[in-house]
Amino acid sequence: MYTISALQDIFNSEIEKESTRLISSGPENLYAPIKYTLSMGGKRIRPVMVLLSYNLFANDVENALPAALAIEIFHNFTLLHDDIMDAAEMRRNQLTVHAKFNNNAAILSGDAMSFISFQYLLKSKSEKLPDVMRLFADTAVEVCEGQQYDMDFEQRVDVSEAEYMEMIRLKTAVLLGCSLKAGALLANAPDKVSDELYRFGIDLGIAFQLQDDLLDTFGDEEAFGKKIGGDIASNKKTYLLIKAFELAGQAQKKELLHWGGRKKFDQGEKVTAVKKVFAELKVEEKTRGMIETYFKSAISCLNNLDIDECKKKQLHLLSQILLKRNR
Amino acid sequence: MYTISALQDIFNSEIEKESTRLISSGPENLYAPIKYTLSMGGKRIRPVMVLLSYNLFANDVENALPAALAIEIFHNFTLLHDDIMDAAEMRRNQLTVHAKFNNNAAILSGDAMSFISFQYLLKSKSEKLPDVMRLFADTAVEVCEGQQYDMDFEQRVDVSEAEYMEMIRLKTAVLLGCSLKAGALLANAPDKVSDELYRFGIDLGIAFQLQDDLLDTFGDEEAFGKKIGGDIASNKKTYLLIKAFELAGQAQKKELLHWGGRKKFDQGEKVTAVKKVFAELKVEEKTRGMIETYFKSAISCLNNLDIDECKKKQLHLLSQILLKRNR
Repeated sequence: MYTISALQDIFNSEIEKESTRLISSGPENLYAPIKYTLSMGGKRIRPVMVLLSYNLFANDVENALPAALAIEIFHNFTLLHDDIMDAAEMRRNQLTVHAKFNNNAAILSGDAMSFISFQYLLKSKSEKLPDVMRLFADTAVEVCEGQQYDMDFEQRVDVSEAEYMEMIRLKTAVLLGCSLKAGALLANAPDKVSDELYRFGIDLGIAFQLQDDLLDTFGDEEAFGKKIGGDIASNKKTYLLIKAFELAGQAQKKELLHWGGRKKFDQGEKVTAVKKVFAELKVEEKTRGMIETYFKSAISCLNNLDIDECKKKQLHLLSQILLKRNR
Repeated sequence: MYTISALQDIFNSEIEKESTRLISSGPENLYAPIKYTLSMGGKRIRPVMVLLSYNLFANDVENALPAALAIEIFHNFTLLHDDIMDAAEMRRNQLTVHAKFNNNAAILSGDAMSFISFQYLLKSKSEKLPDVMRLFADTAVEVCEGQQYDMDFEQRVDVSEAEYMEMIRLKTAVLLGCSLKAGALLANAPDKVSDELYRFGIDLGIAFQLQDDLLDTFGDEEAFGKKIGGDIASNKKTYLLIKAFELAGQAQKKELLHWGGRKKFDQGEKVTAVKKVFAELKVEEKTRGMIETYFKSAISCLNNLDIDECKKKQLHLLSQILLKRNR
């Protein structure tokens, strides 16, 4: 079996080759933003999930490369459109596509990327290709639903924890579940196993998103790679804020609403004040507890899997990389 | 074999049923714009093409309904995104989605529609489903390329006739070709026949787009259903304008550039002036000639088809409906 870092290398050289091929195939103004996006890098966690999952059941991982490309290109398509909708100017320390090119470029090149991802997936050689296609199309619709809920929540102050968990399941977790399940299906794994891998991906994805929320407020600025407190400053409905509203007394609720409603403020002052309320309500600990719950649930999916222990170890390692755990 | 109007009825009742089902399945703000779009109607020419083409080879047209829905929903997705990019406020005498809702709604609901179209296509029962999926994904990428060229041409004054023909092939014709070919493939028609139907659709699609260009300038306002001269007013690079630039002498070119460059103008005056140049250069006759060439080419594809004459007659009728011919 390949190591995770070997799979990363295999994927990175494939996507580099394919982006060069793409750019020479049609209108420059359509493909330049695509090449720009794909060259920005990123963790490439989803395509590695496809390859790793395939590799649990088959050795010819090159047969899973089209599906890995499909999922990475699809993920990047969502970033192009989400960044327009969220008016985000920067990503991975570089200008987003709509900021560097323009809105129309981000819309149309994003559209093309989503269809190119279907083209790649259709190159996969597998008798279960129709099942993989259905999984992928269903996942794509779910990701749109997740993004819609996320935007809806920005206009609301009464988002419940259950609603939030469902939103991050759709927006983030299903694509991780899809990556693992697609790899397994392509390798013709038994349905029971591919379904368990899907659940593993969902739990891991939810833990991952909760941790992303946590690090934005309580992370180490240098290790996190972006400024701490951005979510607080922009009143983003994160797990932390939703939990805080749920637990807050009258005075604390008033304080949160006060900072949420102010148009002009000093970011440092606002972050400190909101974090003070979070500390009173033990929001950090509660979030860590929730991450732990989902992480443990993911690991119990692994335990249910009917595969070699050494293969499980690879999946375990993957989850540690995703959650930046050093144990 | 079903008549065209019977197929229209079958499709209309199916899409009505399906849009009701869609709206009740997820976030209201995602599905309301989709339902709005699908209820706006339109000619439904593409889904009828799928059903008619399927019906040439098989009687159970209900098996082609998912593919017909897929193509109609995909076509409507392109309208949502194109209308943002073209800043078009009205379509079919109603507000466009981004005008009625907002840009983000048109982006995200459009995205969802494109994936829903893949979901529908995947419901088709056919051994050639992977081929149909590939055709559909390839067509989707081509449609994006066509839209990109169309936007690129707005910034250029030197668009050649060949470039224009390639743009309308991608932007308009391939989806008509895809509709016919998909229907044939699903019914397991021989490759030779489905390829010929594709070519028939391409030629017909090009003739259809050229006629759309022609009617915008030389059509009957009432029959056309929108104001005459819109393309001239907005300097749209139509076949007419490209042909005029190709044939114009120095003085005529100067006149066209003069009207193209003016920021403030009386629309009636501009349309009259540009039409005068078109008349001098016989642009209307030349466009009609080109439409005739593509229409004849389409009909010759029909003649090559190895199917019953009465079935060919249905396809002939379809082309007359599309091109609004009364003979």
